[in-house]
Amino acid sequence: MNTEKNGEIEIINIYNQPKRNALSKSILLSIYNELNVVSRDKTIKVVVIKSNGPVFSSGHDLNEILHGSSEDVMSLFNACGDMMKLIRKIPQVVIASVQGIATAAGCQLVAACDLAICSESAKFAAPRISVGLFCSTPSVYLARNVPIKKAAELLFTAGYMDADDAKNYGLVNRVCPDDKLFDETLNFAREITRFSLNVIELGKRQLYNNIEMNTEAALDYATNVIIYNSTMKDARAGIYNFFNKKIKVITDLIFI
Amino acid sequence: MNTEKNGEIEIINIYNQPKRNALSKSILLSIYNELNVVSRDKTIKVVVIKSNGPVFSSGHDLNEILHGSSEDVMSLFNACGDMMKLIRKIPQVVIASVQGIATAAGCQLVAACDLAICSESAKFAAPRISVGLFCSTPSVYLARNVPIKKAAELLFTAGYMDADDAKNYGLVNRVCPDDKLFDETLNFAREITRFSLNVIELGKRQLYNNIEMNTEAALDYATNVIIYNSTMKDARAGIYNFFNKKIKVITDLIFI
Amino acid sequence: MNTEKNGEIEIINIYNQPKRNALSKSILLSIYNELNVVSRDKTIKVVVIKSNGPVFSSGHDLNEILHGSSEDVMSLFNACGDMMKLIRKIPQVVIASVQGIATAAGCQLVAACDLAICSESAKFAAPRISVGLFCSTPSVYLARNVPIKKAAELLFTAGYMDADDAKNYGLVNRVCPDDKLFDETLNFAREITRFSLNVIELGKRQLYNNIEMNTEAALDYATNVIIYNSTMKDARAGIYNFFNKKIKVITDLIFI
Repeated sequence: MNTEKNGEIEIINIYNQPKRNALSKSILLSIYNELNVVSRDKTIKVVVIKSNGPVFSSGHDLNEILHGSSEDVMSLFNACGDMMKLIRKIPQVVIASVQGIATAAGCQLVAACDLAICSESAKFAAPRISVGLFCSTPSVYLARNVPIKKAAELLFTAGYMDADDAKNYGLVNRVCPDDKLFDETLNFAREITRFSLNVIELGKRQLYNNIEMNTEAALDYATNVIIYNSTMKDARAGIYNFFNKKIKVITDLIFI
Repeated sequence: MNTEKNGEIEIINIYNQPKRNALSKSILLSIYNELNVVSRDKTIKVVVIKSNGPVFSSGHDLNEILHGSSEDVMSLFNACGDMMKLIRKIPQVVIASVQGIATAAGCQLVAACDLAICSESAKFAAPRISVGLFCSTPSVYLARNVPIKKAAELLFTAGYMDADDAKNYGLVNRVCPDDKLFDETLNFAREITRFSLNVIELGKRQLYNNIEMNTEAALDYATNVIIYNSTMKDARAGIYNFFNKKIKVITDLIFI
Repeated sequence: MNTEKNGEIEIINIYNQPKRNALSKSILLSIYNELNVVSRDKTIKVVVIKSNGPVFSSGHDLNEILHGSSEDVMSLFNACGDMMKLIRKIPQVVIASVQGIATAAGCQLVAACDLAICSESAKFAAPRISVGLFCSTPSVYLARNVPIKKAAELLFTAGYMDADDAKNYGLVNRVCPDDKLFDETLNFAREITRFSLNVIELGKRQLYNNIEMNTEAALDYATNVIIYNSTMKDARAGIYNFFNKKIKVITDLIFI
């Protein structure tokens, strides 16, 4: 894994090409640690998770499961779960940028991200049933991104879903030509970096909390959040600027 | 706001064109009051919420948020939430008929309605992040209408969704040519006014209750509802008429 | 109802053609009993539920509702609910194969199955509101398969959804030409029979449990399941074979 910065965008590159960008325990911990650092970095508004080569990520390194002790295997899956959870907890929006095949925990990673973009030749699968290891953890996010029967089909048949179906069913937001993926990923990210990190954080936290509640409780909660949001200087300055035809949100403007 | 009656259909016209049909507090209260009246009117089976002009509704009037006191702002958002909740509580089916751009609380209104139809040029957005005020309340209904990543995209990018995507992802039921919207809305409503208000009410209440439960509890609950429904004269007369080739459901037929 | 076996696939034929394949109480009990038997039969990995003729199933026999005593009606709907629940509880994957019109409890049956395939001319409806008996029980599964407004439209208008919309919205996985349905159903089933029944059972139980939980609890639960799964001989042999280029999963291989 390595990282680079592009303005207010942090790019995390999964790099484990000899193992088809497998999410080895060391890579999972590296991403976890990087997300932790980013979560405190107020200059970053969007995180992109990407890789290179024909495989976005092949999921777990099956060698670590076959040859690890019971304690190793437990530790591996817990590290995976912790990383996936952290994606939704950091203030920044996390975009998966998928150039190739995303399988098992690689597909889970796409589903766990806030947003996703993929190239036309990208494919998605949750195929571990074929080696006797049902993709239980990927199923959690998958079944919350796409219709339940489509999730079940991927899980029980080990088959692939192509980019167009991934978009139609909701696993990715956008599909672009293969040679435009990096540019389109940055364009997607920059639609978000125009806005205040305070508001991105408040919104992201609110969204993931509300979807766990029943509808009326969620609405009451979201109502309290938006009432509070109305008192924040981001909103007060933002609305003031809107009426005064200023385009940029000035988040540190003191509004009286 | 003004209203008109068309047979068993009540039409609520949002009218605040100088402010792009903004859902000002006074309009929210007017709709709330009208829905309350309609809920006791057994001659109405369907409510249509529509407007005129290039904007269906621009959501809240940002002036009321910027210039209101804390108490005013709290009261405004509570009035909004109360109105949205009431849509789902009244016995009648509520159809949003969207002729233009529906943003923020305007988009929330479409999502909160039971059904929606829009014209080909309609567009949907939840863009308040651009003024520092995350569309938290719209996100509640939006994330329960469309896939979570599509809701997140609208919320974090401030971008628009067109009519075809709104249909494909589930925010609206139907799309029709711009000049046919009113006729098609009435046709949609009339597919429902053929049926008994008692049964519409029972069904609507049951549907919104069941989706908040786990699947087995929901099925047990729905089973009890349908057993009860079987004893109602609407069902007994309806089934009797079905077997006897009578077309119209006679809800006040006494069936022995 | 009758059954046949095709390799590791059990085929349940609904047969009640004089009543448009209605799910009479006796047919519901027959399917329930057959699913119960299958659940203990370790030679069966997939169950196909199909029928013949222009109607897949017209749902309940309305005569049983109109002419039954209160106790009969209660017993009928409880038998229906018990059968639908059992589909999701048996270890095997259940595929609905829909050749014609599936209405009311017939549509519910498709929605309750794990997977579904239909022919191009298949149609789906939840139309009992037209006889005063709202499709409450069908709405439970329908609203968990397709977007809420699409479920509401079927329920409140009594209208039909065609095969393409059923696929786009998630009620069926695949659509095929009418004359290929049986072959394509078997092909679909055989994509699953390649795998271990132990793992199918573990996966199915896990999936339906996790979707009832909040996301983090579901992930913690699924993590425990996959850690356990890693210790099963199916996974240990499966991964071993994967690395050693053996194609078939040998579930009874003793792996040390």
